Amino acid sequence: MNIKKRLLETEPVCRDYLSLDPGILAQRLSEMAEIGKTQNSGVTRFVYTDEEAEAKALFRSWMEQAGLSVREDEVGNLYGRLEGTNPDMPAVLTGSHLDTVPEGGAFDGALGCISSLMAVEAVIEQEGRLTHPVEVAVFIDEEGARFGGGLLGSRIAMGEVTKEDLFQMKDDYDTTAAEAMKRSGYTPNKLNQCFLSPETIEAFLEVHVEQGKQLEQADSSVGIVNGIAGPSWLEITLKGETDHAGNTPMDMRRDAAAAAAEVMTAVEAVPDEISSTAVATVGKLTLSPNGSNVIAGRADLIVDIRDIEEDTRDEMIRRIEQVVLDIAEKRNVESETLLQVRIPPVPVPQWLQHRMETAAKTLELPYQYLPSGAGHDAMILGRYIPSGMIFVPSVEGRSHSPEEFTELKDCLDGTALLLETLKIAGN
Amino acid sequence: MNIKKRLLETEPVCRDYLSLDPGILAQRLSEMAEIGKTQNSGVTRFVYTDEEAEAKALFRSWMEQAGLSVREDEVGNLYGRLEGTNPDMPAVLTGSHLDTVPEGGAFDGALGCISSLMAVEAVIEQEGRLTHPVEVAVFIDEEGARFGGGLLGSRIAMGEVTKEDLFQMKDDYDTTAAEAMKRSGYTPNKLNQCFLSPETIEAFLEVHVEQGKQLEQADSSVGIVNGIAGPSWLEITLKGETDHAGNTPMDMRRDAAAAAAEVMTAVEAVPDEISSTAVATVGKLTLSPNGSNVIAGRADLIVDIRDIEEDTRDEMIRRIEQVVLDIAEKRNVESETLLQVRIPPVPVPQWLQHRMETAAKTLELPYQYLPSGAGHDAMILGRYIPSGMIFVPSVEGRSHSPEEFTELKDCLDGTALLLETLKIAGN
Repeated sequence: MNIKKRLLETEPVCRDYLSLDPGILAQRLSEMAEIGKTQNSGVTRFVYTDEEAEAKALFRSWMEQAGLSVREDEVGNLYGRLEGTNPDMPAVLTGSHLDTVPEGGAFDGALGCISSLMAVEAVIEQEGRLTHPVEVAVFIDEEGARFGGGLLGSRIAMGEVTKEDLFQMKDDYDTTAAEAMKRSGYTPNKLNQCFLSPETIEAFLEVHVEQGKQLEQADSSVGIVNGIAGPSWLEITLKGETDHAGNTPMDMRRDAAAAAAEVMTAVEAVPDEISSTAVATVGKLTLSPNGSNVIAGRADLIVDIRDIEEDTRDEMIRRIEQVVLDIAEKRNVESETLLQVRIPPVPVPQWLQHRMETAAKTLELPYQYLPSGAGHDAMILGRYIPSGMIFVPSVEGRSHSPEEFTELKDCLDGTALLLETLKIAGN
Repeated sequence: MNIKKRLLETEPVCRDYLSLDPGILAQRLSEMAEIGKTQNSGVTRFVYTDEEAEAKALFRSWMEQAGLSVREDEVGNLYGRLEGTNPDMPAVLTGSHLDTVPEGGAFDGALGCISSLMAVEAVIEQEGRLTHPVEVAVFIDEEGARFGGGLLGSRIAMGEVTKEDLFQMKDDYDTTAAEAMKRSGYTPNKLNQCFLSPETIEAFLEVHVEQGKQLEQADSSVGIVNGIAGPSWLEITLKGETDHAGNTPMDMRRDAAAAAAEVMTAVEAVPDEISSTAVATVGKLTLSPNGSNVIAGRADLIVDIRDIEEDTRDEMIRRIEQVVLDIAEKRNVESETLLQVRIPPVPVPQWLQHRMETAAKTLELPYQYLPSGAGHDAMILGRYIPSGMIFVPSVEGRSHSPEEFTELKDCLDGTALLLETLKIAGN
């Protein structure tokens, strides 16, 4: 079904918010979804492609129509600023991204950008300006679908990327990120001019689809993110002995697959011992030689370990490492663990959570606190600048696929909560 | 190291058997190992290739030198017959195969053929003839390395293969088994002439390397096989839901990988509840989408289930199917099980086991009973004819690889046990 039609299905039950028109929100979301639309009704917009440029040009035109002062930095991050009544105050930044994964959805990123713009338009309509400047931000290449890694625009804005990095990142056709930038008219040599100085920013706020099912199941229209879980990836290798499945009695085996199974079951039990927000997942496992009549001599698995607090996340890592050692010893197999990725969780400051909660209460919106298990631009900015996130429900939790959908009424509630929070934070 | 040199290392500790020369045994094993020898010192001899033809020609020449009446059937099975003093009695058949897996070893198959010939030569030297005729058999394509399936020669000899089957079996280059037969001068149209009528055969005896570690660890030089375990392959599919590893709390998951892990751990415990010879193995597992930050929506695994008795094997299948149902229900995932392969176990008749035991006691050989977990030509013949197997130790259990090795003293002990059993069974 046409996305606009589907969005408008809930228009009659949208709440009535001053200066926020659900029809315009639906129109903008569906207009943006046409850019890079695929045969499967997915959306593909990779960084430094015509589709991404077209999406940004459209968004730029909307910002200009709203009267914002628009600028693009040297790598393509796009900003639209509404001056504050006191222009010396640090700005409240709000936004997201317009790039997508391959065959992605119409909401991941785009909703955050459009919500931010509409909230600022509402500020203009209602109050003209806030005390603080307010700036809408569109960060490039959040998904990392072309060059890997992801979060490129926000990492550049926070000074985390060097020119050399851009020459090393390559797409599938061996074009470096630096070359792609140049071809699109940007200048990888001027990364320092892309830097956003933290003291010039009061806070960053991002509206995003949940990409999970908690809000849907709790029937909350908005989620206040209480922390962004940094993923850790623990690579585990178990080495036993490859033997004939028929000629090796059960008690003479050193079965790496059986050891992996025991590890997986143990891993699954660890988060509950730690915290209500902790998760641990084995989604990737490779047995060798992986033959049906051969006892596996080797198993390679990755445990994805996350929590919103670094100490509980690290305690999970320790327990899982111990579990692996114990099981390996008991089964007489060799084990190796390697902590391959270890991104620190980013807390959302209490005062910022509290402002979002106050805003939700003012609006009488059903809300709940929840962690963000995925990384977002707010995870990068949050290392340097107080950053908060507002989640809206994902239908059936689906995301990163053409099936991604969020009801218009929920998109509008998220936008209203952002607007209310902006007014509290920016005055 | 040269295989002959390595074999001769234990020549000084070989037992002294009348009419069995360990030097000749070592010479023949190493001469045969030269045919199809690979750069890694493995052996590759596929059915209907020059290497296999050369191996059979060499073996034929040995049989002719021994004075046996040699005949080859219409597909290439090779027989060398020593008439009995009573030629109307059913023959005692003994033998194995000369084809190999890719880069296989020098003992799997070849030892069984050479042991059989040497035992018959000893019979001739000691007694001229036995009451029963004795026939040495070399069955083609036991391994199935070229056309898949395997056990082709023995299945043809037992009437289990049709001409149509031969036109459907194809190698990697789309040559059918029928075409390959014709190219090698055989006639796939005359399968009925290859049939060995069960009433013409008293028993079949096969010496084989264990391909496991039980004899080595028990320090027994020979094993008396008490049954050949028919493999069953139970394919299990578990379907949960693919979700984001970060955004899905532990209690909202339908994790197919975690379900598979629990199934694997449960499967491992089942054989001990059933019998001392039962085994169950998950050596093959595929997760989908198999991404480190994605909860697996699907797991496909195969359980290899074996025992030497059909009822205990089938009881294991039932218990494992129940385990899958229980775990799937508890975890709210869907499950399917499909019994893909179900080869009946082949019992070794008690009287034949007893004759081999009597022979071992006569020779004062340290022996033990053990099941054969792998399939062999004796598994096919055993469905129609009383069939027994003698196992000799595999160093470190290695087989189907260039590292496959059995000490000369053990090869000789196995040959002596075959000779003694032949004399009991054939008189």
